[in-house]
Amino acid sequence: MRTYKLTVAYDGSRYQGWQRQPDTKMTIQGILEQAVLEEKGFPVKIDGSGRTDGGVHAKGQAASLVLPGKIDEEEFRNALNARLPDDIRIMQVQLMKNGFHARYSAKGKKYVYTVDTGEKGDVFQRKYAYHFPGNLNLQVMRDAADILEGRHDFCAFTDRKTDEMTTIRTIHRIEIVRQGNLLYIEYDGDGFMYHMVRILTGTILEAGSGRRKSGEIRRLLYNGERTDAGFLAPACGLMLKEVYY
Amino acid sequence: MRTYKLTVAYDGSRYQGWQRQPDTKMTIQGILEQAVLEEKGFPVKIDGSGRTDGGVHAKGQAASLVLPGKIDEEEFRNALNARLPDDIRIMQVQLMKNGFHARYSAKGKKYVYTVDTGEKGDVFQRKYAYHFPGNLNLQVMRDAADILEGRHDFCAFTDRKTDEMTTIRTIHRIEIVRQGNLLYIEYDGDGFMYHMVRILTGTILEAGSGRRKSGEIRRLLYNGERTDAGFLAPACGLMLKEVYY
Repeated sequence: MRTYKLTVAYDGSRYQGWQRQPDTKMTIQGILEQAVLEEKGFPVKIDGSGRTDGGVHAKGQAASLVLPGKIDEEEFRNALNARLPDDIRIMQVQLMKNGFHARYSAKGKKYVYTVDTGEKGDVFQRKYAYHFPGNLNLQVMRDAADILEGRHDFCAFTDRKTDEMTTIRTIHRIEIVRQGNLLYIEYDGDGFMYHMVRILTGTILEAGSGRRKSGEIRRLLYNGERTDAGFLAPACGLMLKEVYY
Repeated sequence: MRTYKLTVAYDGSRYQGWQRQPDTKMTIQGILEQAVLEEKGFPVKIDGSGRTDGGVHAKGQAASLVLPGKIDEEEFRNALNARLPDDIRIMQVQLMKNGFHARYSAKGKKYVYTVDTGEKGDVFQRKYAYHFPGNLNLQVMRDAADILEGRHDFCAFTDRKTDEMTTIRTIHRIEIVRQGNLLYIEYDGDGFMYHMVRILTGTILEAGSGRRKSGEIRRLLYNGERTDAGFLAPACGLMLKEVYY
């Protein structure tokens, strides 16, 4: 048995997220597993580095699978791509050490959230950016981002909490770059909870539009409640850029 | 009666081109005219600066229309956008001098053709770039572009010729820019015939991949035949960037 890592890019617009579901065929995991089944002739489980929500995109999602015998990585990649729809592409197939697991072995992830601040909205960004017209104070947004960086209890920044699970995470860096009307908010951290990047983004956007002060954000990191944090920024603006190991 | 200019952006992927057709509703002109009809309550003809083929995109298509009475330009724009699908957006409505006509008053146009040269193809460019993997010699492409610039008889570079019409055009500039795996070929000229930008692009790509020498391109501009020119590059890579007056 050999363990392989897949690097997968997808346009999430048409899909109901990463995770296989019994009641729909429109999931990335389900479609990948179906392609491998057709290619190999037997079912193989594919483990993602994590789930992405419906409508969220990826340039560098990682997944792992275990196959009997040897394959040619490039041939396997091309064969799967030939079976996949054109909005899901396998960018790379790599042989890994046995024991590698896309989720448990991951050291961290990078996400990019794209905001279109133009008055009218760019037609070609409509599926890949959240249209949020108006003036944003970049300096205030960067100050908010600075507060959020570091090791904190992010319990106010998720929509699904279980008692057993820690809500402490480390965000190594939040970088905000403006390019014309587009604003890119890039997150690099050791792990992100359900909806976390989108709630962080909503909170930073509220700061940038003057609806939220730095003091409030600092308080959110102590005894914060979800209801005190920012709005859930829409899925379409979010992209999983990289998973690193 | 007042004359207005519309600046229109569209993602051409779903459409059968600009020009209204009796047998399909999926044309940009048809959909714009329908929106104006619904908004004003009477039919209004909309004249484009030119037709774009099925699948071709626009960031700055221009069109003109004549309306009785006075309108508020921004209100009219917003009202039309509310009726239009999200892949067609009116960016601007401007009051013009009477006699202005999007086609006859145009001084020139800028088109951009996007090529994705990456081995695997960028999922997010699949509708906006032509995937043409492989090594391209940028210098050879620029030399070919230099030859094509200027005032020439481009009769070899169109798929529809009529005896009455001149095939002489002036290309002011062809600029080729590389950004990562993407290659942008930008054309600025006084007018382009049917398929002309796409055949020019096919010819330049053939030069860049070593299949065509400079001398052949020079000959094409004298007594060229369509069959001697390059292939027709696919519509999805083409974008009408600007019409200037």
